[in-house]
Amino acid sequence: MLLFRIRADVTHKFELDRLFDPSSIAVVGASTKAGKIGYEAMENVHDFGGRVYPVNPSAEGAAFGEPFVASVTDIDDDVDLALLCVPAPVVPEVIEECGAAGVGAAVIYSGGFAEAGDDGAEIQRRLTETANEHGIALLGPNTSGFVIPRTGLYGSFATGVESFPAGDLAIVAQSGGVAHSIAFQATRERRGLSAMVGLGNRANVGFEEVIEYLDGDPDTGAIVLHVEGTDDARSLLETCYDAETPVFAYKVGEADVGDFAESHTGALTGDHALYQAGFAQYGVPTVDSTSQLLDAGHVAATAPLPDGTNVGVVTAQAGPGIIIADRLKQAGVSLPPLEDETTATVNEILPGITYSANPVDTGRPMPEFGEVVRAVAADENVDAVLVYELHEAALGFPTEDLDGLAESVGKPVVFATAGPESLLEPDREELESVGVPVFESPERAADTVAALAEYARVNAEAAPAEVVDNA
Amino acid sequence: MLLFRIRADVTHKFELDRLFDPSSIAVVGASTKAGKIGYEAMENVHDFGGRVYPVNPSAEGAAFGEPFVASVTDIDDDVDLALLCVPAPVVPEVIEECGAAGVGAAVIYSGGFAEAGDDGAEIQRRLTETANEHGIALLGPNTSGFVIPRTGLYGSFATGVESFPAGDLAIVAQSGGVAHSIAFQATRERRGLSAMVGLGNRANVGFEEVIEYLDGDPDTGAIVLHVEGTDDARSLLETCYDAETPVFAYKVGEADVGDFAESHTGALTGDHALYQAGFAQYGVPTVDSTSQLLDAGHVAATAPLPDGTNVGVVTAQAGPGIIIADRLKQAGVSLPPLEDETTATVNEILPGITYSANPVDTGRPMPEFGEVVRAVAADENVDAVLVYELHEAALGFPTEDLDGLAESVGKPVVFATAGPESLLEPDREELESVGVPVFESPERAADTVAALAEYARVNAEAAPAEVVDNA
Repeated sequence: MLLFRIRADVTHKFELDRLFDPSSIAVVGASTKAGKIGYEAMENVHDFGGRVYPVNPSAEGAAFGEPFVASVTDIDDDVDLALLCVPAPVVPEVIEECGAAGVGAAVIYSGGFAEAGDDGAEIQRRLTETANEHGIALLGPNTSGFVIPRTGLYGSFATGVESFPAGDLAIVAQSGGVAHSIAFQATRERRGLSAMVGLGNRANVGFEEVIEYLDGDPDTGAIVLHVEGTDDARSLLETCYDAETPVFAYKVGEADVGDFAESHTGALTGDHALYQAGFAQYGVPTVDSTSQLLDAGHVAATAPLPDGTNVGVVTAQAGPGIIIADRLKQAGVSLPPLEDETTATVNEILPGITYSANPVDTGRPMPEFGEVVRAVAADENVDAVLVYELHEAALGFPTEDLDGLAESVGKPVVFATAGPESLLEPDREELESVGVPVFESPERAADTVAALAEYARVNAEAAPAEVVDNA
Repeated sequence: MLLFRIRADVTHKFELDRLFDPSSIAVVGASTKAGKIGYEAMENVHDFGGRVYPVNPSAEGAAFGEPFVASVTDIDDDVDLALLCVPAPVVPEVIEECGAAGVGAAVIYSGGFAEAGDDGAEIQRRLTETANEHGIALLGPNTSGFVIPRTGLYGSFATGVESFPAGDLAIVAQSGGVAHSIAFQATRERRGLSAMVGLGNRANVGFEEVIEYLDGDPDTGAIVLHVEGTDDARSLLETCYDAETPVFAYKVGEADVGDFAESHTGALTGDHALYQAGFAQYGVPTVDSTSQLLDAGHVAATAPLPDGTNVGVVTAQAGPGIIIADRLKQAGVSLPPLEDETTATVNEILPGITYSANPVDTGRPMPEFGEVVRAVAADENVDAVLVYELHEAALGFPTEDLDGLAESVGKPVVFATAGPESLLEPDREELESVGVPVFESPERAADTVAALAEYARVNAEAAPAEVVDNA
């Protein structure tokens, strides 16, 4: 059983600009006590660049220099975004007040809604109805929020989110905790983010609305999704299909974790195989972990996408090269024979080369290594290039040879290496700055290239005519 | 078809002390020119703590302050170890000289032997015969060497190997490049190593000899193997089985990479499924990547091993908890119901807890989080504990509650988290110092615990009586 493909005429329910690009923010339940959500949220947004209003009827004085007000209705300003740091039972009333005050969007951090049984579901139904009446976009409830690094908008109550580097990848996760886990991994690995969004219970802002918004965001080069389950899979798939931005997905719940998952964001995980097939049919490759999602998304956002599934591998060490070839083949990627011309060129550059088929194994790093990579990248049998080279301090990386190569051949050129951080770091940064993403394990590089190849496959097979429209 | 299990009466072919713990080293082909292997090897060993002799008939003066000699036979000292930085055709003659000089062991870095066709195989046959006559242990040929971080012995020509932290895990890889890749990953992730050994072509020192040696090394708490293929799989398996030290293996070559692999260390990759089954039958769990190998080996080397395959999961964020539960179940690990007593204790610690089954989901980090982990660790239904908690700066980790917990319950307690490096680092180091390994992705923590559970399974099922002897 496969899902049908029907192009949806999806319309924006809300103007998400007021959520993701607000001019003013109210923090409802703001607190001056460190560790409380109302404090952490206030700390994260207090200098975001617009007006911030701490709201708390039982507080006096000021928070982060801003005087407390008793209610959003007391604010003499158009508040775009309200961050709700109050417990579930109070939320419907606060949303009423937000409606009265003309607030455009709200993030609801607290739990105790649809994920917590019938009573919570009833509260969520009520507040969603109110929000819909007033046209308030709701992120959550039951989410740790969102972050837009480029503008310094930290709509999350987690600590340390100001460390997220700005960049091209948007993370959209059903779970706020997973969104933060991926974003912190990205930070550790110097991968820039255009947005991090944790959806939570998706009261009226779901995958569709956020994907559409990010598809229109010039700073977003790729979108990655963490999906537990949704009631309307087709709507999600159609939105992905309509997006011009490449989308990759990580569908959790292959094993039976339904009970626990339903207790989370109130959604069943559904049939895992059906989701995988559905995503593929709608042009979305799926991956198997948060790090694979990050890796594939980062490269898709910053490098050319491959036109097909043929990969050329160049390695300076046979052992990691074998791991890479093995891993790519297991993932269904092909390592085609190189053109005769390429083999001749490689043998001319390096007479007596260890192995000049695909993978090309140079036996050791050497000054001509970059030339060999260029020759393989130019090969018409090859849609993407994966290079492995153990870092040698005396030699560095072939940065000059690879500068602009990916753009000029229109194929991703991905590098994997190993070495001590202190010696490796400057060379790695240089190589990344000329358009070559670098990984520090052979498997992560191989999985990334396999995901890119899968992107080419599912988009070629899916619906050529329509895909061409979108490309 | 499964391999038979027969306990082997394996005897040491060589005293590997002269290889891994030498008092004096000759560097044959030593050079004063940076970038040459003879320079890099010399640089890496010149201050290892014993005498170092640069050997080069065509060089004059000194290298790193040591005067050149023309041949190992000119050295007026018992040389334990010779590092051969000379091309393949010269190696047999140098080995002859090593034999005449009473050298105990040699590392042969160069390629061009069995992996390079019939002529190379003939050279390798000749030099092995000579080495065997003189009782010289040969590491390689075609390897980048070995490192013993604790003693500062860097028998590798790679740069930066002095950064490897000393610790409890021994890496034994068929490929020197893979050995270095894993060791540099370990370095980046602060996992200590007792040894890193790249075997290469295994002229007369193979997996068996190195595993036996490391099994007798009091500094080695676990051994991890990277295996491409070997002519005598049973001998390898029996050696693993006889070792008292836990062994984990990564068998490469699930896809057909035979051609390329044979060109590497002269070994066929063989039947992948047969290897996996063989390893399991002999008490060795297999994993699927270099990082999984490192992770499982690190925890096995530093924490108690589980007695069974039942895992208790505690999470402060549902989303990552679902990922962990999903991943564990996919790997065949069970998440059993907790004892009534445990559930009661958890509900007493945290009334109104989000989800008190297994996984236990506390909904958010809180001061009582460590108490909840202690309760689950004490549960008799549980053989290992996996904890997820997003780092919150105001709260830190429950280090005091977890101090010594793993040892006292005799179960591994593994932690996964996410957070910004600057805030996370001191708390992570504290937590690791009290016996709790920390991972920064939910999947890596889950894969590690799954590998530990697999260790319990294959050792329980394999041959109980004999396994008990070894435990």
